[in-house]
Amino acid sequence: MQIPSRFEPPKRLLMGPGPSDVAPEVLKAMSAPLVGHLDPVFVKMMEEIKAMLRLVFQTKNEMTFPVSGTGSAGMEFCLVNLIERGDEVLIGVNGVFGNRMVDVAERCGARVMKVEAPWGRIIEPQQVADALKKSRPKLVGIVHAETSTGALTPVEEIAKLAHEAGALMLLDTVTSLGGCPVKIDDWAVDAVYSGTQKCLSCPPGLSPVSLGPRAMEIATKRKTKVQSWYLDVNLLASYWGQERVYHHTAPISMNYALHEALRLVLEEGLENRFRRHQENHLALREGLKTMGLSMASQEGHQLWQLNAITVPEGVDEAAVRKRLLNEFNIEIGAGLGPLKGKIWRVGLMGATSTPANVKTFLDALSACLPSRA
Amino acid sequence: MQIPSRFEPPKRLLMGPGPSDVAPEVLKAMSAPLVGHLDPVFVKMMEEIKAMLRLVFQTKNEMTFPVSGTGSAGMEFCLVNLIERGDEVLIGVNGVFGNRMVDVAERCGARVMKVEAPWGRIIEPQQVADALKKSRPKLVGIVHAETSTGALTPVEEIAKLAHEAGALMLLDTVTSLGGCPVKIDDWAVDAVYSGTQKCLSCPPGLSPVSLGPRAMEIATKRKTKVQSWYLDVNLLASYWGQERVYHHTAPISMNYALHEALRLVLEEGLENRFRRHQENHLALREGLKTMGLSMASQEGHQLWQLNAITVPEGVDEAAVRKRLLNEFNIEIGAGLGPLKGKIWRVGLMGATSTPANVKTFLDALSACLPSRA
Repeated sequence: MQIPSRFEPPKRLLMGPGPSDVAPEVLKAMSAPLVGHLDPVFVKMMEEIKAMLRLVFQTKNEMTFPVSGTGSAGMEFCLVNLIERGDEVLIGVNGVFGNRMVDVAERCGARVMKVEAPWGRIIEPQQVADALKKSRPKLVGIVHAETSTGALTPVEEIAKLAHEAGALMLLDTVTSLGGCPVKIDDWAVDAVYSGTQKCLSCPPGLSPVSLGPRAMEIATKRKTKVQSWYLDVNLLASYWGQERVYHHTAPISMNYALHEALRLVLEEGLENRFRRHQENHLALREGLKTMGLSMASQEGHQLWQLNAITVPEGVDEAAVRKRLLNEFNIEIGAGLGPLKGKIWRVGLMGATSTPANVKTFLDALSACLPSRA
Repeated sequence: MQIPSRFEPPKRLLMGPGPSDVAPEVLKAMSAPLVGHLDPVFVKMMEEIKAMLRLVFQTKNEMTFPVSGTGSAGMEFCLVNLIERGDEVLIGVNGVFGNRMVDVAERCGARVMKVEAPWGRIIEPQQVADALKKSRPKLVGIVHAETSTGALTPVEEIAKLAHEAGALMLLDTVTSLGGCPVKIDDWAVDAVYSGTQKCLSCPPGLSPVSLGPRAMEIATKRKTKVQSWYLDVNLLASYWGQERVYHHTAPISMNYALHEALRLVLEEGLENRFRRHQENHLALREGLKTMGLSMASQEGHQLWQLNAITVPEGVDEAAVRKRLLNEFNIEIGAGLGPLKGKIWRVGLMGATSTPANVKTFLDALSACLPSRA
């Protein structure tokens, strides 16, 4: 075999469901020389990452840190630590990631009850209330921002219902964190996970998580060992906590990147950042409307950072995506599951969410659609 | 809270048990702009990574790819896919990583039989042969290069014994891969995992793995679902295989780094690379001998890439490590478990393994030890 040549990626505009564009400062941070994962300077940086993550999650939870895997590892982290075989859980399913939560929970030995909504719609609090009349789950799990459909399910009331029923509240904020309000303490969410490659605009590879006191009590007083060694919070707490006991080798360079990405989020300010995401979403909607295109997700609950656009009748959606990528260097996402072939998913996440990118995309999309004259 | 300032790591010489020094080309690769994880150019790069990993593992196994987690995630990947609850496994324990394999296997529901050797010594084939007279395990697991002790256990004969007993052979090559011969097909190893941050001199964050046909048959014909969704090879095969079905978002930048690191390994050539590791190990040994210091691991089975040095009587080992770090910017490792306080662990892995670094370290260590005059 001939040795491949050095990889030189093209410059894409990342407007899919993630990864989003990464700021030059964050890319630069990754090219810094490595230090050891137990080096005092690295340990100090870990503390800063934890403190910044608490601000971004709007929580005081001590156990707030990045799991050494992508968003799905964060989902698995929460479920393996909180569930023991035979536990009952209630999960809201209105897209790919609700289904994934069900799959992961079942692999932990949970008996799963589902609350379902059509893809593109939110999980209604009333549905959860009804389901809780028939069961006493240990945990209620909801996807905040469904990346596969573009719908944003309000959390606060569902969390209240979960607690009244004596259950923990688990929240997927992979696509919401850093792009729209996520208020872990105000909403009384007990366990939450996210990803770095969406609205935090950091490369994929880490999953920020946070466990509150109720979740930590469940995780530390289990009867059985956590089935995953890699994700066992009882072991991870000794590394990310004060003791600094060696567990695994943390992905050093990825943590450099997350540190810088969080700094940029806080320098912009959460409220400013949310407003930017909202404004660019509204500009995109407006432009699409002018083109005669409509949004596929539920009116009043559309994500600012992930826009599901209905593919017009008679248009070959895959051909449009291919042209956007090959002729305009713009990546957008396809529909998944029941929405396959029916929607495009256009991300305006983190560094990607700018007025210039909205305009670039609308112009390129116009050029790829058949003329309506 | 004040926003922390940009993180500027000091320039360390990484001579601990990993991470090792990373070549400038690899650091630069990580600062390239991101493309999507389903982008055709990324997919082509993934194919190149797989092909290069096959050369480095010396295997033709189709299922050879990097797991999106560190070395311990690779260990867990192998065990969760190959073990079902109630299976019997035989594991060699002569250090931290053998113990970890036992822990992970037990969390998969395995009944574990241990073959033990004192820390610093190898697992002898005869021990495995004796244990196999009393049991019929599904799998025999061995740590090739015990990072916690500096001992290299020969694999070929143990693999033969495992197969004669109808068991799979599982090998931990986290510290061996890229630093000394690892011949997966010649040795008939069925499942193997490694790490990127040792002799491949790539930052931590990925775990190269390879499963042979016997292991794949076990993993694909299981009676029960793999307990980890994130690490289920049946799902991962669709993403890393020809179908390119979305599973999780691969750590894009880490794969850029691994691509470049593997290129550098192959450009140097495996045999040249092994010889370099051997020569620098011998130079280090010689220098230590002159200083009156001795190696702690078994004579004739000492790792070239990880050197366990016996701390001389009366020397405060932690103080020496601290001085090396603070005054000389050199990181070395401490002893773990029963070797805590008794050894230093000096890595000569990948880019760290140079004659200049051996000399720098010996001079610095001399300066930190009490004069014997």
